[in-house]
Amino acid sequence: MNGAESLIRTVSRAGVDVCFANPGTTEMHLVQALDEVRAIRPVLGLFEGVCTAAADGYARIAERPAMTLLHLGPGMANGIANLHNAHRGRTPLLSVVGEHATFHRRRGAPLQTDIEGLARPVSKWVRTSANAGAVARDAAEALAAAGSAPAGVATLIVPADCAWSDAAGPAEPVPPTPPARVADAAVEAAAAALAAVRPPTLLLGGTALTEAGLRAAARVAAATGCRLLSETFPRRIERGGDLPVVPRLAYFPEEATAELAQGGGIVLAGAAEPIAFFGYPELPSELAPPGMAVDTLAEPAHDAADALERLADRLGAATEAPAPRPPGPDADDAAPPDSAPLGPLSAVRIIAALQPEGAIVVDEGLTLSAAYVPASAGAPRHAYLALTGGAIGFGLPAAAGAAIAAPDRPVIALQADGSGMYTAQALWTHAREGLDVTTLICANRSYRILLDELRRAGVEQPRPGAQSMTSLGEPPLDWVALATGMGVPAARATTAGELTAELRRALAEPGPHLVEMAL
Amino acid sequence: MNGAESLIRTVSRAGVDVCFANPGTTEMHLVQALDEVRAIRPVLGLFEGVCTAAADGYARIAERPAMTLLHLGPGMANGIANLHNAHRGRTPLLSVVGEHATFHRRRGAPLQTDIEGLARPVSKWVRTSANAGAVARDAAEALAAAGSAPAGVATLIVPADCAWSDAAGPAEPVPPTPPARVADAAVEAAAAALAAVRPPTLLLGGTALTEAGLRAAARVAAATGCRLLSETFPRRIERGGDLPVVPRLAYFPEEATAELAQGGGIVLAGAAEPIAFFGYPELPSELAPPGMAVDTLAEPAHDAADALERLADRLGAATEAPAPRPPGPDADDAAPPDSAPLGPLSAVRIIAALQPEGAIVVDEGLTLSAAYVPASAGAPRHAYLALTGGAIGFGLPAAAGAAIAAPDRPVIALQADGSGMYTAQALWTHAREGLDVTTLICANRSYRILLDELRRAGVEQPRPGAQSMTSLGEPPLDWVALATGMGVPAARATTAGELTAELRRALAEPGPHLVEMAL
Repeated sequence: MNGAESLIRTVSRAGVDVCFANPGTTEMHLVQALDEVRAIRPVLGLFEGVCTAAADGYARIAERPAMTLLHLGPGMANGIANLHNAHRGRTPLLSVVGEHATFHRRRGAPLQTDIEGLARPVSKWVRTSANAGAVARDAAEALAAAGSAPAGVATLIVPADCAWSDAAGPAEPVPPTPPARVADAAVEAAAAALAAVRPPTLLLGGTALTEAGLRAAARVAAATGCRLLSETFPRRIERGGDLPVVPRLAYFPEEATAELAQGGGIVLAGAAEPIAFFGYPELPSELAPPGMAVDTLAEPAHDAADALERLADRLGAATEAPAPRPPGPDADDAAPPDSAPLGPLSAVRIIAALQPEGAIVVDEGLTLSAAYVPASAGAPRHAYLALTGGAIGFGLPAAAGAAIAAPDRPVIALQADGSGMYTAQALWTHAREGLDVTTLICANRSYRILLDELRRAGVEQPRPGAQSMTSLGEPPLDWVALATGMGVPAARATTAGELTAELRRALAEPGPHLVEMAL
Repeated sequence: MNGAESLIRTVSRAGVDVCFANPGTTEMHLVQALDEVRAIRPVLGLFEGVCTAAADGYARIAERPAMTLLHLGPGMANGIANLHNAHRGRTPLLSVVGEHATFHRRRGAPLQTDIEGLARPVSKWVRTSANAGAVARDAAEALAAAGSAPAGVATLIVPADCAWSDAAGPAEPVPPTPPARVADAAVEAAAAALAAVRPPTLLLGGTALTEAGLRAAARVAAATGCRLLSETFPRRIERGGDLPVVPRLAYFPEEATAELAQGGGIVLAGAAEPIAFFGYPELPSELAPPGMAVDTLAEPAHDAADALERLADRLGAATEAPAPRPPGPDADDAAPPDSAPLGPLSAVRIIAALQPEGAIVVDEGLTLSAAYVPASAGAPRHAYLALTGGAIGFGLPAAAGAAIAAPDRPVIALQADGSGMYTAQALWTHAREGLDVTTLICANRSYRILLDELRRAGVEQPRPGAQSMTSLGEPPLDWVALATGMGVPAARATTAGELTAELRRALAEPGPHLVEMAL
C-alpha cells in the first residue's frame, strides 16, 4: 500500500465519504487510491472554489467533514475564498493539497509556491507530510483537528512521492474534541443578566441555532421576556414549521445598533460580539450601543444548545415553550396577480409560499436576502445556510454539497447574479451529479450592494467609472444560456405568474433547474 | 485630496492607464478617485482571476504595468493563481487591495483575513499603508518595485480610512531599476562555451525572445553553429514573418532531455536552468542530461538581448544573420478537405494559415499547443504569450488584457476547455469592452493532459474514479451557449471547412467571437 492509499483508507475509516476534487498531476496517485478504496465518492468541480464551498455546504448539512483534493498552491489558492467562509463559519473540512515530490520542491518548477503560507490564513491546522509512512497518521490528525471544537479547516499537504511511495497502512481514527460545556457560573451570570427590568437581547449563534438550541432559547424567552435575535450570517439555522421565530440582526450598522438599543443588554449564546461588517467613517466597529452590557453565556466554540437548556432549567422555564405562531408567507398581503412584474417582495413571497417541507435554503441572495428571511418565517420547516465569511461565490457550490449530503431533501439556492458569476461552474456539477437543486438567480444586473454602499456614502448618481464598476447589464448576463451550456434546464421569469409556474415545475421535477428572476 | 485620490494621481502620473478591478465596499473611495482623475480606464472583471490575468496580458504587450483593484483578502485570494503566473513570468503588476479601516481590523468582521500573508507567496513587494499621508509614496514605491528587474507583482494594501482620509497630494514617480547588463566576463565565458566541438544549445528566455534578442541569437548561431531553443513557456516571444525560427524545449521530461542531449552543452541566455514541470518517480528534476555543462550568459533578470548582441559582436558574427526560411503552415502537407472532421493537426494548420499579420496569440491550448507551435513557425509575424506559472485559467482574461494594450492588433486566444472554465467570466469582459479577441476553444471534453499523465504512469484505461476526475463530457459543456450568455457571438466547428469559415468570419468582424472546435 502506498501513502496515497493509506491516506484514503484512514479518512474513509474515520467517516469521510465524499471528496470534492479538482486534481492534477501531483494528485494522480490519490485519485488512483480513491479507485482502490471506492468508499469515498469523488465529485469533480470545474474550479477549486466549487470544491471548497461544496465541502462547506456538505458539512453544514451532514454535520461531518468532507474532503477536498486540490492541485498544488495555485489550485488551492482558487479555493481560498470559500475556505475562508468555512473557516469563519467553523465548518469542519479536510483540505488535502498535492505538492511537488520532496526532491522536486524548491527547484523552481513553474507551479512551485509556498502552499503552507497560502493555507495558513484560512486553516486552523496546516502540515506537510514528511514521508510516505507519515501520511496516514497526518491524515487522522488533520481530520481530528478539523472536527475538534471550534471546528474548521485542516490543510494536509502531501508531496507526490509521499503519495506514491510505500507506506505501512492506514492509521486509527483520532476522535475530535467535542464543544466544551459552559461553566455553571456562566449559566448563573446569564440568569442574572436576563433579570434586568428592561429585558435584554439573547443573541444566538452556532449550535444555539439547532432545533434543540432554538427550543431552549424560546423557553428562556418565555420565562424572562427577553428578545431573541440570531447572528446576521448563521452557518446553519433551523427555521419554519413550529420552530420559534428568531429574527436576525440587521446587516447595516445603524439598523443593527437601533435593533440592539431596544433591549436592556446583550447576552451572547454561541454568537460572537456583534461587529459591523465594514468600518465606516464616524461609526464604531461595535454594533452594541455605547455602554450597553454584553454578557456571554456561551462562546462560539461552546455547546450553546446545552448552555441554553441548562439556563432554561435554572430559570424554571416550562419544558415546552409555546412557539410563536408566525404569519404565513402571504397572510399579511394578498398574493400578487400572475401578470404583475416580478419584484423583490413578490419574488420572496412566492418562494416562501412554494418551498417544500424539509427544504435546504442556501442563501447568497445578498440584497434579496433581507426580504426573504422575514417572508419565510412561516414557511414549512427548513434549514437555512448563510454566507459566513463574506467571500462571495459560496452559494451555487454550497448547494451542491448540501444536496449530496441530503439527497432526499430539495435544495433551493437563492443566488445573486454578481456573486453567482464567481463560481457559476458549480451548475455543471449540479448537472453531472443529478442534484435536486433549484437555483433562483436574482438578476438585478448590478452589484446592487455596492450601489447601496455608494448611496450610504452620499453618491446618488454614480459617475461613469463607479457606474461601470457596479453594472452587470452591459451586456446582460443570460443565465438561461449559461445554465443550459452547463447542462442545467433553465427558464426566465419576469412576472409573478411565471416565477410561480417555473418554480413549481423545478421543484416537482428531480434534478437541477435554474430560474432567472428578472428583478 | 484624500488618500485614494493621491494614489490614483500618483500611479497615473507614473504611466498607469488601466485598472482591472472588482472592487467592494472597502474600495469605494478608490473607485470614486478613478472618477476624479479619469486618466485611468477602469475595466470590470466578474471574478478577480480575470483581473489579475488581464493585467498580466496587458503588461506583456504594453511592456508597462497595469493596476488591479481587488476587495480585501478573499477578493485578492481569487486572483492569486493568475498573480502566480505573473510572478513567475516576471510581469510588472501593481496589485492594490483594499483592507478594513485601521480601527476595524482585528475586530473579527466576517471578511477579516491576513492579506499580507496571502499576498506574499506571489509578490516581490508587499506593504500595508500606515495612514492616508503615506499612500501616495507607498504607491510610487510599489510601482517602482513592480517594474524593477526582475519585474513582478507589487501588492499595496490600503485600509479604507487611509483611502478616505485627507492626504497631501500625489507623490513623484520613482524610476524602476532596469535589467542589469551582464559582465564582459560572462560574454567571454559564453563565447568559450560555444566553441565546443559538438555545438551546444543556446537556450533563450526573457528578453532574449524579443525581436532584438532573437536576431542577435540568430547571428550567434550563424557564427558558431549552435542550436537555438526557447524556454517551454515564454512570457512573450516574437515569432513568424522573417524572424528566426526558435523551437521550444519539449514539455515532458524524457523528450526535453533527449532534445538537450543532441547538443554539446547548454548556454542560458535569459532562461533559467531547465527543470521538469513535475517530479516523477525515477526521473531527476534537471532536464539537462547528467554531466552536461550548463553555462550562463544572462540570467532571467539580466538584459539578455544586450548580452546576445555583445556576444554576436565578440564572435565577429555578420550583422544580419539570414533568417532560416520556415516552411509555410501548409507547405509540407495539403490542406485538409472542407468535409474532413476537425482534428488537432488540421485545426492548428488552419489557424496558422489564417492568423493575420500582427496577431497576438495567447496560448492556453495545453495539449493542442504542442501542435500549434511548430505549425505556426511560418505564419505572419505575431507575438505569442504562454502560461508561465502553470496556473490554469490564464488565457481568456490575458487575451482581454492584451487586446486592451494593443487595440489595433487582432488577439487569438487558443484555449483548452478545462482551463477555459476556470475564468470563463472573461468572455463577458471581451463583450463589454468590445475587444477584438477571437477565442478558439479546443473542446476535447476532458482534462486531456491528466489522461496523458495517467498513461505515463501506466494507466491506459482509467477506472471510474479517475475517469470521473478527467472527463468533462457528462454533461458536455456547450461553449456556444456559455459565450452567448455572456454576450460573445459564437459558433461550433466540427469540420475543417467549418473552422475555416468561422475563423475567417471572426477575424474579419470587429469585436469578440468564440469558436468551439470539436476535437
